Amino acid sequence: MERLTVDAGLMRAAGINIVRIGEFAWSRMEPSEGHFILDWLHETIRVMARHEIRVLMCTPTAAAPAWLVKNYPDTLIIGKDGRQAYHGVRQHTCYTSPTYRRHCSRITDKLARELAEYKNVVAWQIDNEIGCSMFGNCHCAHCQERFREWLKQRYGTLAELNRAWGNVFWSMDYTDWDEITLGDRGLVHSPARVLDSYRFFSDVKIDYAMAQAGIIRTHQPGALICTNNFWDVDHFKGFAALDRAGGDIYRGEGFAFANNLDRHRSYKPRSPFWLTEADVGGEGWKGLPHYNRFRPRLWSFFARGADMLLVFQWRPFLSGQEQGGAGGILEHTGKAGARYEVVRQAFLEMQALASHLHDLPLPTAKVAMLVDYDSIWTIAGCRLPDNTAMAKMGESLFRRQLLIDFIPSDRDLNQYRLLLIPALLHISPPAAERLAQFVKGGGVILAMGQLGMFDANANYLPLPGPEPLQDLFGFTMNNGVRLNTSKANIEIRSDQNGELPLSGEIDGKRLSGVARMWSADINLKGGNPLMTFDGSCLDGQPAVVEQKTGRGRTIYIAANEVDNELLAAIVHYALEAAGVVPGPEVPDKVEVVERGPLTIIINHGPDPAAFDIKRSGGAIIGNYKDSRVSLAPYDVCVIKSPV
Amino acid sequence: MERLTVDAGLMRAAGINIVRIGEFAWSRMEPSEGHFILDWLHETIRVMARHEIRVLMCTPTAAAPAWLVKNYPDTLIIGKDGRQAYHGVRQHTCYTSPTYRRHCSRITDKLARELAEYKNVVAWQIDNEIGCSMFGNCHCAHCQERFREWLKQRYGTLAELNRAWGNVFWSMDYTDWDEITLGDRGLVHSPARVLDSYRFFSDVKIDYAMAQAGIIRTHQPGALICTNNFWDVDHFKGFAALDRAGGDIYRGEGFAFANNLDRHRSYKPRSPFWLTEADVGGEGWKGLPHYNRFRPRLWSFFARGADMLLVFQWRPFLSGQEQGGAGGILEHTGKAGARYEVVRQAFLEMQALASHLHDLPLPTAKVAMLVDYDSIWTIAGCRLPDNTAMAKMGESLFRRQLLIDFIPSDRDLNQYRLLLIPALLHISPPAAERLAQFVKGGGVILAMGQLGMFDANANYLPLPGPEPLQDLFGFTMNNGVRLNTSKANIEIRSDQNGELPLSGEIDGKRLSGVARMWSADINLKGGNPLMTFDGSCLDGQPAVVEQKTGRGRTIYIAANEVDNELLAAIVHYALEAAGVVPGPEVPDKVEVVERGPLTIIINHGPDPAAFDIKRSGGAIIGNYKDSRVSLAPYDVCVIKSPV
Amino acid sequence: MERLTVDAGLMRAAGINIVRIGEFAWSRMEPSEGHFILDWLHETIRVMARHEIRVLMCTPTAAAPAWLVKNYPDTLIIGKDGRQAYHGVRQHTCYTSPTYRRHCSRITDKLARELAEYKNVVAWQIDNEIGCSMFGNCHCAHCQERFREWLKQRYGTLAELNRAWGNVFWSMDYTDWDEITLGDRGLVHSPARVLDSYRFFSDVKIDYAMAQAGIIRTHQPGALICTNNFWDVDHFKGFAALDRAGGDIYRGEGFAFANNLDRHRSYKPRSPFWLTEADVGGEGWKGLPHYNRFRPRLWSFFARGADMLLVFQWRPFLSGQEQGGAGGILEHTGKAGARYEVVRQAFLEMQALASHLHDLPLPTAKVAMLVDYDSIWTIAGCRLPDNTAMAKMGESLFRRQLLIDFIPSDRDLNQYRLLLIPALLHISPPAAERLAQFVKGGGVILAMGQLGMFDANANYLPLPGPEPLQDLFGFTMNNGVRLNTSKANIEIRSDQNGELPLSGEIDGKRLSGVARMWSADINLKGGNPLMTFDGSCLDGQPAVVEQKTGRGRTIYIAANEVDNELLAAIVHYALEAAGVVPGPEVPDKVEVVERGPLTIIINHGPDPAAFDIKRSGGAIIGNYKDSRVSLAPYDVCVIKSPV
Repeated sequence: MERLTVDAGLMRAAGINIVRIGEFAWSRMEPSEGHFILDWLHETIRVMARHEIRVLMCTPTAAAPAWLVKNYPDTLIIGKDGRQAYHGVRQHTCYTSPTYRRHCSRITDKLARELAEYKNVVAWQIDNEIGCSMFGNCHCAHCQERFREWLKQRYGTLAELNRAWGNVFWSMDYTDWDEITLGDRGLVHSPARVLDSYRFFSDVKIDYAMAQAGIIRTHQPGALICTNNFWDVDHFKGFAALDRAGGDIYRGEGFAFANNLDRHRSYKPRSPFWLTEADVGGEGWKGLPHYNRFRPRLWSFFARGADMLLVFQWRPFLSGQEQGGAGGILEHTGKAGARYEVVRQAFLEMQALASHLHDLPLPTAKVAMLVDYDSIWTIAGCRLPDNTAMAKMGESLFRRQLLIDFIPSDRDLNQYRLLLIPALLHISPPAAERLAQFVKGGGVILAMGQLGMFDANANYLPLPGPEPLQDLFGFTMNNGVRLNTSKANIEIRSDQNGELPLSGEIDGKRLSGVARMWSADINLKGGNPLMTFDGSCLDGQPAVVEQKTGRGRTIYIAANEVDNELLAAIVHYALEAAGVVPGPEVPDKVEVVERGPLTIIINHGPDPAAFDIKRSGGAIIGNYKDSRVSLAPYDVCVIKSPV
Repeated sequence: MERLTVDAGLMRAAGINIVRIGEFAWSRMEPSEGHFILDWLHETIRVMARHEIRVLMCTPTAAAPAWLVKNYPDTLIIGKDGRQAYHGVRQHTCYTSPTYRRHCSRITDKLARELAEYKNVVAWQIDNEIGCSMFGNCHCAHCQERFREWLKQRYGTLAELNRAWGNVFWSMDYTDWDEITLGDRGLVHSPARVLDSYRFFSDVKIDYAMAQAGIIRTHQPGALICTNNFWDVDHFKGFAALDRAGGDIYRGEGFAFANNLDRHRSYKPRSPFWLTEADVGGEGWKGLPHYNRFRPRLWSFFARGADMLLVFQWRPFLSGQEQGGAGGILEHTGKAGARYEVVRQAFLEMQALASHLHDLPLPTAKVAMLVDYDSIWTIAGCRLPDNTAMAKMGESLFRRQLLIDFIPSDRDLNQYRLLLIPALLHISPPAAERLAQFVKGGGVILAMGQLGMFDANANYLPLPGPEPLQDLFGFTMNNGVRLNTSKANIEIRSDQNGELPLSGEIDGKRLSGVARMWSADINLKGGNPLMTFDGSCLDGQPAVVEQKTGRGRTIYIAANEVDNELLAAIVHYALEAAGVVPGPEVPDKVEVVERGPLTIIINHGPDPAAFDIKRSGGAIIGNYKDSRVSLAPYDVCVIKSPV
Repeated sequence: MERLTVDAGLMRAAGINIVRIGEFAWSRMEPSEGHFILDWLHETIRVMARHEIRVLMCTPTAAAPAWLVKNYPDTLIIGKDGRQAYHGVRQHTCYTSPTYRRHCSRITDKLARELAEYKNVVAWQIDNEIGCSMFGNCHCAHCQERFREWLKQRYGTLAELNRAWGNVFWSMDYTDWDEITLGDRGLVHSPARVLDSYRFFSDVKIDYAMAQAGIIRTHQPGALICTNNFWDVDHFKGFAALDRAGGDIYRGEGFAFANNLDRHRSYKPRSPFWLTEADVGGEGWKGLPHYNRFRPRLWSFFARGADMLLVFQWRPFLSGQEQGGAGGILEHTGKAGARYEVVRQAFLEMQALASHLHDLPLPTAKVAMLVDYDSIWTIAGCRLPDNTAMAKMGESLFRRQLLIDFIPSDRDLNQYRLLLIPALLHISPPAAERLAQFVKGGGVILAMGQLGMFDANANYLPLPGPEPLQDLFGFTMNNGVRLNTSKANIEIRSDQNGELPLSGEIDGKRLSGVARMWSADINLKGGNPLMTFDGSCLDGQPAVVEQKTGRGRTIYIAANEVDNELLAAIVHYALEAAGVVPGPEVPDKVEVVERGPLTIIINHGPDPAAFDIKRSGGAIIGNYKDSRVSLAPYDVCVIKSPV
C-alpha cells in the first residue's frame, strides 16, 4: 500500500485525474465463493480520492476464478467444435449460463453496493471487451436452448422458420424445435441460419452487459456506465443500453485510425466517447513505437469526440499472459522514464487549456456512412463475396479532411448531404422511404455492391435489385459475376481472383479502373450510365449509374470493390454533387478537424509542415500567423475562432 | 405449381428434353418417418410429361432430414478425428450404417414404386457425388466392424494379415481382430493398412450405390441408372455396377478439360456417358465467365462421348448454402436472360442436326493410359513421392489431337498401339502376361516411376523392379533417389525439392531435361540407355531405357516426373514407334475430334482461326471450303464424311 | 536365420563391429502379456558374437504392442487438446502411466536378465528419441496429478505458487491444488505455468529413462547405457543420468552440422558421444544424396568427439511407415551395392588407423556458449520475442575453425577464454558470482538479449537488467522495443517485423547493421557505448556496450538478433579481446579440427582444395607435403604431430 501512494503521487503529478481499476481481479475480490476481501479496493479508492483522482471501476467478470469454473463447469464456454473452454486464460465463460450470470450478479452487486459511498467512483466498465474470447461464441446446451427461444419469439412457428430460412434446400427442414442448433461461419451452414446466429449472439452479449448495468444503476444511479467495446455486436444497439461508448485503440495510422475514432464517436450519437485503452508509443518510426506520437494522437482523440483517454497501462505487468509490455506509463521497474515524461507534458498542456476545451460541441459531419450489421454479418459469415468499400470510402473522405458519421439504417438523415452505402443487402420499407425522401430533398447517395438484392433473412429476393428502389437508382440488376472467392474460413473456388475493367466519362474526365469481388448485371431504367464494363459476360454493360430525382441524385457502382484511385474520383464527384466542401488541402500526414470554435491541426509525420489556412482568431497552442500554420514534426496547432 | 408450367414451357422452348429432379428433397418427400408427401412430385412429373420432357429422378439420400439423424444418431458419420457429423450440411451420414441403409431403402423403394407408372421417368441418379463429404470417410464403430469383416474375407487369419501388412515394423502386430481400426492418410499409418482402408471405402460406396440400384431395378427395369460420380472409388468397378457413368464438370481448360471427358467416357467402356452437371459460363475471359463458351464446350462433351448434358441449374437458388449462383439458365428472378438465350440456341442447333448425331459410334483411341487405383491410393495416402505423369502424358496427347482411353490393368489391349503407364507399383502375374503379349504383338509401352517394385499390398518386394518384367523392359532397378518430399497431409523433409538433370540422344535428336520427385537406380539387362542422369549418386546411370521385343518395344523413364518439353519429345518418339498418327496440326485452343463420320472442330479461344484440314464430305455446321476451315472466336465446325 | 548369417558376414566384411537391435520389436518379444518369445533374439546375438560383432541392445518401449494399449487404455497419451492417442503409430504411450511403467519394467527386466549372459551385448539404448511423439506431451489425469505433486515439492504452498507464478493477473489464483493443470504453449497460458510445465515434462522423461537404466544396471553393470536423444529435455541433466550421449543426425550442412556435433559432445562432458543414427548419402549434390559425402562426414563425427557411428539402416524396410528409404547400407533387395561399398571403404580405412585413433583425448574449446533451458523454454513457450543468437554466434565461430563447448550456467568456466551468452533471462546468484569471477580473471563475455531481466520463474524482475550484474556489464536496462512478433504457435501482432539500425566504431572500424526481434532501453553505468541505435524511441541510445573489469571485459549487444555480418565483426572483436586464436584460414567447405595430436582436415565440397597449414609431423592419411594440404573433392587429410 506504500507503493500505492507513490503511484498516486506520480499520477497526480502527471495530470492524471481518473484511473481504471478492478478489471480481472475477481480472484482477489472473492477468493472463494461468497467470501469477499475488498479492503485493498477500499484502500485504493481512498488513496485515489486523497490525490483527487477519480475511479472508473470495472466489474471483474471477464476473468472467472479457478474455483468458480471448477465447481460449476456449466459456466464454461463450449466452442463450436464441441470442446469445452478451461481455466488459465480469460473470457472462458458463457454469457447465457444462469450459473455464471448468478455469480456475475453477486460480485457486481457486492461491488456496486460497497463502493456506493465513494464520491470519486464516477464511472463503471462492464466486463472487458465483451465477446473477444479465444473460444469464440458459446454453443453449450443452454445457449442452444436460448437460441431456440429467440427463434420462437422471432418466427412463431417452425413452418415460418423453415420458410424464412429457405430450409427446402438440402433437406434442411426442421420438424421439431429440438433439432435446431446454432449455425456458425466456417461450417457451410445456410445463410439465414448463420445470420440469425449472429443476431442472437449480439443480443446475448448486450443482454449480459445490461444485466450488470442494471445492478450498478440501482446502487449508483449517478455513475456513467460503459464497456470497452463489444465483438460481433450491433454497436448502436449495444451502446444504446449504456451511458458511454468505450474503445481500446492501439493500432492504426492515417485513415484507419481516424475512421476508427469516427466510428467510436458514432456508436452513441450526441455523446462523447471514451478511449478506455490506448498506448503511449503508437506506431511512428517505420512501424516501431515512437513516444512523440503520443501528443498528436491525444489531440486526434479529442478532436474527433473523445473526452476521456486512459493509457494502458500504468506500469507493465511483471507476470502473467500480458507480461512485459513496453507501453506502460512507468517503466517495469516502477520508475518514471521517457514515457512518463511524454504523458505528463501532454496531459498538463491539455489541462492548462481546460477553459477552451470544456463543454465543446462534438464535431459534426455532412457525410454519413451506413453501417448495416445484417449485411456485415451475412458477408462475413456466408459465401457472399467480401465487401471492402467501407474502408476504401472512408479513406477517400479522410484524405479530404472530412469526418464521417457512421449510422444505422434507421437513423434520421436530415443533417447530412451525402450518404455512403457500401453494403446494404436488404432495404427495409422504412429505410427505402427514408432514402427516397433524402434524395428528393437534395441528398446524394453513393452506393455499391449487392444493394437490395436480399430479403431480411439473407435470402435472395425473387426480384431484380435494388428492391424496392429501382426507380430511385434508375436501373434493375441481376446477380452478375463473382470475381473473387477468397473469404475468411470459407473456401469456394480459391483460384479465382478476377478483375473486370470499367471505363467512362464522369464530369468531363475520362476515368478507368477495375472492379473486384463481384459485379452486377444491370438493365437501365432511366439512369445514366457513367461507366461501362469491358469484358466477361458483362461486356459493354453499365458499371456506374447515376439517377437524378428531385434535387438529389443517386450514384451506384456495380461492384463490391473498385481500385482506390477510381473510387476516390467517384467520391469526389459525389461530394461536389452534394455540395459538400472538403477541408483544406494540407500536406500528407497532417490532419485538420473542427470541433466547435476550435480548428485542431495535427502533424502525424516526422517532417515539418507549413501551409496556409484561413481562420479568424488565433492559436491557443502552436504556431499560426498571417494565415500560415507551421508545424514541427509530430506537432499540434489549435486555432480558436470567435463564435 | 403455376410456376412449374411456366418453367416447363420455357424449358421446352429452349430444346430441353430431360430434367433432373428430387436430389436432396428428402425432407419434403418424407417430412417425418414413414409419412410421405409426394403429390408435388407426381404433379411435377406430369407437367413435364405434358411438355414432352423426360425425367432423371434422383434418390434424395445425400441429404438426410433433421428428424432422421436426430432420432437415429448412429446414422451420422464419425470422422477420422472421432468427431460426429451434424445436421445442417449434406452428406453427413454413414454409408454402412444399417439404420441409414434401412431408411435409404425405404425412401428409394417408395419413390421407385410410386413413379413406376410414368413413362417419362427414364433414368435414375443414385444419391449425389458419392463420397464427397466434408466429414471425410466414416470411422464409426460399425464401419470399423465392417472393415474387420472385409479383412477377414481378404486375409483369413491374423497371422496372414500381420504378414501381408508387414506388421513386424514398429510393433504393429495384431493379436486380436478387435485391435484393428481403419487407417487413414495423414495419420502416418502403415502403407498396407492405408491401402486396404482405401479399398474398403471404395467397396463400401459401391455397395451403397448398388443397394439402391437393386431396389430401383425391381420396380423400373427399363430405367437407366447412374450416379453423378464417386469420390475415392475405383470408378471402373463403381460404374460397372450401374448403367451409365455420370459426372459433374464445371472447371478446366484445354487438356485438363478434354482428359476429364476422356476419363468419364472410359469409366464405362462401350457406353456414352452423362454430364449430370455443367455450367453455362465456363471460364473464358481471363478466368471469368463468358457465355459464348457454352456452345464450344457442349460440342466437346458430345465429341468425346457424352449423350446427355444437364445444366446446373435451371434457376439459381434464392436460399440455402448454394444460394445466388450466377450459373443458372434463368436469372434468379425467374426470367429468361442472356444465359437462357445461349443455351436455347445451342440446344436447338443440336436438335436440328439430330439425324446426323443420332446413334453415332463413340470416338476411338489408339492410345490407352493405365489407371491403377491401388497405385493412386498408395501414392496419395502413403509416404511415396507424388506421381504427376498421368496429367503430363495426357497433356502431350491432347496437344497432338489424340484421344486417350483410360483403362484398368485387367482390360484387353488389342485395340491399342501405345500403352502409357504413368504409375503401376505392383504388376500382377496376369497383368505381366498381358503386357508382355501386347509388346510381342507390336505394341509399345511407355512407362515411368516405381514400376513393379511393390507387392499387392504396398510393400516393397525384396526384388529389383520392374518385377516380373525385367526382361521385357531390359533392366533391373533399385529404389533410387527421392527428389521431392512435398505431399498432401504428410510432411517428411519439406525442404527437399530437387531436380536431377538427364540427357541423351533419341531418334537422332539431342534431348535434355530434369527428373523430379523420384528417380531409379538402374542396372541394364539388355536394354538401350537412351538418356543418362547427370549428378547425385546416380551420376552417369541410365535415365531412359528402351528395349525391343518381338515387333514391339518398351520405353521406361526412370523418374516420377520429367519436365513437360522432354516428356512431350519422348511421347512423340513413342507414338512414332507405335505407328500412331497424330491428328492435324491446328492453332492453339482449337480441338479436333473424330466421332464416326463426323470431324468436330472446336475453337475454344477468343481469336478467329483458319487452317487446312483434308476431309471428304462437307460441313453440317460451320465454314469449310476447299479443305479450309474458318472459325470465328468460340466457333464450331462439323464436317461429315461419307462412310 | 540363414539370412542373418549372410548379413553378419557382409557386416563383418565391411568392418562393422557393433549393431543396434531390438528397437520397436516389442510385439515380437512379448506377443501377449507376459508371454515372451526371445529365441530369435538369442540367435541373433549369438550369430553376431560368432562374427565378432558387438550389440547395442534397445529396449522396445517406444512402440507398445496393440494388445497393451487395448487392454490398458490408461497407457495412451492424452494430447493437450484432450484427444487420446491410438495404436498404429509409435510413441503413443504416457511416460508417467504407472501401468505403462510396469509393462516397460517387465520387458526391460526380462531382456536385461536374459541377455546378461552375452559378452557381446556391451551397451543399451533406452527407448527411442524420448519425447518425439506426434501426440506431444501427455496431459492425462495421471500426468496432471504428477504435475501437482511436482509443484508441491517445488513451492510447498498454494500461496507461494500463486505468488511465484504471478497468479494475481487475470484471476489466475488457485484455491485448491486440484484446479491446477499443465500449461502449454499455444494456449496463451501464463509464462510461469508454461515454464514449469516444460520443466516437469523434462524431469518426467529423464525419470522414465532412469527407471529403465536402473533395471539394466542391476543385471548388466558393465554395459554402457545411452539413449538416442531427448526432445524438450534439459540434455545436460538427461545425459548425466546415462553413460553416453547419443544422437540421430541426418541433416545439416556446414555450421549447423558442426555445431550439432559440438552440442552432442557437450551434453555429457569428458565423454565421447555416440552417433546412434546417421545416413550414408548425406546431402551433397544440390541437396540430393551423394555417397561420397559419407567419408568426410564420418571424419567430422570422429573429429568432434564421437566414438561410435551407427548407420541407419542396414537394409531398407520393405513394409511399414518407414518403408523404402534409400539410405540403408544394403539395397532393399538385400544385395550389397554402391552404399555398401562406400561404407566398407570408409570403415576399413578407419580400422586400419586404429592405433592412431584409439584413446585420443576429446577436442578442446576455448570458447563456451551458455545454454540455459529455462530461457529456451520461456522464449519458445511464451510471448517473448525469438532469440536466434545461438545459431548465429555458432556460425561465426565455425567459420573461424573454432569449436564450441555448449555448457549450462552451473558449469565451471576455468578452461575458457570467451563465454557467449545468447540468452540468459534469469541470472541466479551463483551464476552471477561465477560470471563475475570469470571476467575478473581475464575472461570475456559476449551477451545479447533480455539478459537478467527475469526471476527464476519467467516473471520480469521489478528491477532494471542485467540483474544482479549491472556493474559487470556497465549499464542498466529497461524493456525496450519489441521489433518482431512472429512466434511459432503464438500470434500477437503479426504484421510487425521491424528492424532498428545501429552503428558505431569498434576497434577503429566503422560498423553498422540492424537489430531485430527486440532491443533494450539502456542507461550507461560506467560502460562504453561502442554502437548506438538510430531511430524509434531508442534514437541515439547505446546498442552495444563494453565494460572492462579486472583483466576481462563484457560486451553486450542490446538486441535479440543483429544481422550476420555485424555479429561476425563483434564476435571477432570479442575473440581478440579474449586472446583466442582462430584456426587456420582455409577455403570454404573445408573444416579443420584438432583432436589430441591429430589435425583432421576435411573437404566437404565438390571442388578440390589446396592450402598451407603449418604442422609438425606428417599425414596418416591424405596429401600433406611442405606445409601444403591438397584435397580432392570430399577428401580427408589427417596430420599427426608429435606429442
